Formats: sequence, C-alpha cells, structure tokens
Amino acid sequence: MHTLRFTDRSTADGILERDFTVGDVTGVLWSPGTGGRRAPLVLLGHGGGTHRKAPAMRGRAERIIAHSGFHVVSIDAPGHGGRPRTDVDEREIAALQAAMAAGEPVGPIVVRYNAHLAERAVPEWRAVLDALQELPEIGADGPVGYLGLNMGTAIGVPLAAVDSRITAAVFGLFWHDPLAETARRVTIPVEFVIQWDDEHIPRPSGLALFDAFGSREKSLHANTGRHKELPRFEADSAVRFFARHLGGGAVTPA
Amino acid sequence: MHTLRFTDRSTADGILERDFTVGDVTGVLWSPGTGGRRAPLVLLGHGGGTHRKAPAMRGRAERIIAHSGFHVVSIDAPGHGGRPRTDVDEREIAALQAAMAAGEPVGPIVVRYNAHLAERAVPEWRAVLDALQELPEIGADGPVGYLGLNMGTAIGVPLAAVDSRITAAVFGLFWHDPLAETARRVTIPVEFVIQWDDEHIPRPSGLALFDAFGSREKSLHANTGRHKELPRFEADSAVRFFARHLGGGAVTPA
Repeated sequence: MHTLRFTDRSTADGILERDFTVGDVTGVLWSPGTGGRRAPLVLLGHGGGTHRKAPAMRGRAERIIAHSGFHVVSIDAPGHGGRPRTDVDEREIAALQAAMAAGEPVGPIVVRYNAHLAERAVPEWRAVLDALQELPEIGADGPVGYLGLNMGTAIGVPLAAVDSRITAAVFGLFWHDPLAETARRVTIPVEFVIQWDDEHIPRPSGLALFDAFGSREKSLHANTGRHKELPRFEADSAVRFFARHLGGGAVTPA
Repeated sequence: MHTLRFTDRSTADGILERDFTVGDVTGVLWSPGTGGRRAPLVLLGHGGGTHRKAPAMRGRAERIIAHSGFHVVSIDAPGHGGRPRTDVDEREIAALQAAMAAGEPVGPIVVRYNAHLAERAVPEWRAVLDALQELPEIGADGPVGYLGLNMGTAIGVPLAAVDSRITAAVFGLFWHDPLAETARRVTIPVEFVIQWDDEHIPRPSGLALFDAFGSREKSLHANTGRHKELPRFEADSAVRFFARHLGGGAVTPA
C-alpha cells in the first residue's frame, strides 16, 4: 500500500489546496477552510487530454466546497498532467490527433483508448482513496462521491462497479457499447448527463448507457447543444446531487 | 375583456394569498410579503382532477416565492375546483372512472379530454393574464413563466404556442401524439420532465415530445420511477429554472 505524501500547500479564497502523490499518481486535495473539519469526499475524474487542475476541475471543486463544505480530490489520469506516457499512450494520442486532423470520427479511438486507461486508472483511484481515508478529516467510513464526464465516465463507471465506498456518482457524455455491461453492476444513485445534439455520441447510445445503470434511483439530464456545450448549470445540479446523497454540508446555501 | 375581482385575502408565513375571479374563472394569486413589490409572474397549471389550491400548487408557489420572490398564479381548469361541469365534462369523467375501475388504459381518454379542455382553458388563461397585467405589481411588460405537468402540459403547450408573453416554461408527463405539432411552435426555454418507468406514457412518446419543442434551449429531466413518482427535487429544479430565465428574485437563497 502506498502512502500519501503532500508535496505542496496553499490557500486562496478560503480553500486549502494540497498537492500530493500516492506512489506514481499525482493528485490535489481541495478542502474548505483550514482543511481539518471532517466532511464527505468527492472524487473528480477529468476529461481526456486535460489534467487534475484543469479549470473545470477547479471550478467544480470551488462550487462543491462553497455549497457543501466537502473535500474534493482530483488525480491525473495515467499519461496525463505530466505523468509519463507509455508506448500505448503515445500511439493512441497520435491516432487521435491524426483522426482529428483528417476530420474522421474520434469515437472508436476514444472508446478503445479510454478502456485501456480505465484498467490502469481504477487501481490507482482505489489506492488514492485508501490513502486519503487515513486522513482524520476524511476517515475510513465517510461518504464518497464520484464525478466525471467523458474519460472521467470511462474510468468512473468501472471504478464505481468495484468499489463500494463510492455511494453516489455523476457520469455522462460517453458511448453505450463499452460501458453498458459494467453499468448494470452500478446500483448507487446516479445523475447522468447527455447532450441532445452530440456530434460524437449518437443520442440512442447516450440514452442506452443511462438505461443500463442498475441504480434504483437515477436521473438523466439531456440538454440541447453539441458535445462540448454542456450548460454551466449542470455543475450546480451536480453539487446539489452530492449534497442530497452524501449528506452533511450546506455550509453556505447557494 | 373581463375584470379581475379579488374575492378573498389572507396572509400566512409571509405569503399573501388573494383569491380572485376573472369572468367565470376562479383563481388564486400568491405574492411575497404584502404583495406590492413588482416581480416576475409564474402561471401554475394543475393536473387533471385537482384544483388551483391543490397541495402541489401551494407547495410550488411557496418554493418559488421563498427562493425568488415572484408572484404565482393558479387557476381552476374548466370543470375543476368547483367550476360547473358541461355535459362533455361529465361524460369524459365517467369514461375515465369506468376505465380506471376496469383496469383499462386511461391514456386515450385523457388525451382526448385534455385536448378538449385546452381549447376552453387557453382563452381563459389569456384573459386572466390580461387582467393580472393591470396590477402594478405585475405590469404589462414583466417576465412570465408557465409551469404545468400532466393536464397542465396539455393546456400549457398550446398556451405557450400562442401567447408570446410567456418566456420560459416547465412541462412534462404527457403523450407525444396530441402535442408534438404544437410543441414545434414553442421556441422559449423549456425544462421537461418524464418518468423513466411511466406505466401510462411510453418512454419513446415522452422523449419524442421533448424532442418536438422548437426551443433552442431545452433540458430533459428523466427520473426512474412510475408516473406519480416524480422526485420532489424536480420542484426545486423548476424554481431555479425560472430564477435563471425570468431574472430578478433571489430574495432568499435556497
């Protein structure tokens, strides 16, 4: 088992930001105030080609902390955020770039590559969660949520299927085929977003993935717009979803 | 043009409740505080077999007022809430009761009867809105939203299609066939709810009605559960939808 090592620490706008490593994995833990208060934890899984501190990750952490006072952790996926790339990473990234340059569909490459990344990322997330639960402000029995779209869903669905510590999740913006079988084993409350006019993911594929989740309680949010046009108010909806399901919180109503 | 006549008035929990008539139509106007402050207006359309002060209507009004400080109006649909029933009303209500008693599908009767009611109700809503806009606290150019599910959607979609004063609407829980053509002419922002396991409305029918709206900006919220199991958090989502689109408000964050 790998140990959590804090590598950097800063505070801004009432949020404590602590960079850390767990083995080879680089991550960041955002906490309200001075970080010592016991509170639920939300795991953030970033999208393909970005990293643990991408603006969307920081923004979601800020909203969750402002509304609910939870801890929020984001880690770099394998091959992302300065982590070393394998030969597979280099080959798949080159294939993606070639497809984009040629105006060809990226879906088949994303699906294949993200399935590969998920196999590497799921044990990393579990080791990070093991290590974080050693912290008194998180603890071994505190509520844990997961939020990740795109690649964050490709990694998060298999993670939630095997790790029962995760009790609520926000997913979306991914294809049905590679994840449906795994999604059937996910039975926690799920909020799932699709874009109604997604130019990459066919509408029936998104609907089928939502339908596949084994959860008794799940909500689909479909908004007009293309793949990258997810409305900002969905970030607030996710905040409220976690406030409902992870409890505690509501430090500042919003 | 009919005049607004207030028939009763009371205050509780910081909400002014004024019953009124406009011609033969009975309604209730809920307002924050002493009712004099200019604010946007939300129209509430109740479901079949209920009335203007049904718990769901009061509850939605309370949430909208607490969060946004808007005015909220609810009127009795034709043949509802003590308003006289026509021969058609009596016949269709008897048909509905017979179908329910026999365990037969009510959908075809609801669709037919609600289309008939909408023809009577749309001009009534327009007359009520005309009259309310004479009040200084509402005014002729203030933002107006509409919220109605089930029969409230059967009436609200044709209303929104013809009355450009309505600039945002929450609809849902209705069949595609009778409303899709009209929905194409609705271009305002729409939030639309369906129940993923609706035993009355087939899932493809609900999805098709959402798809039919001509709105550039629309959101589908689909939740697991049967027809009557709409989660309570959708009421809060509607409150925030109107706060975003009608502006003003945010008296009390929630």
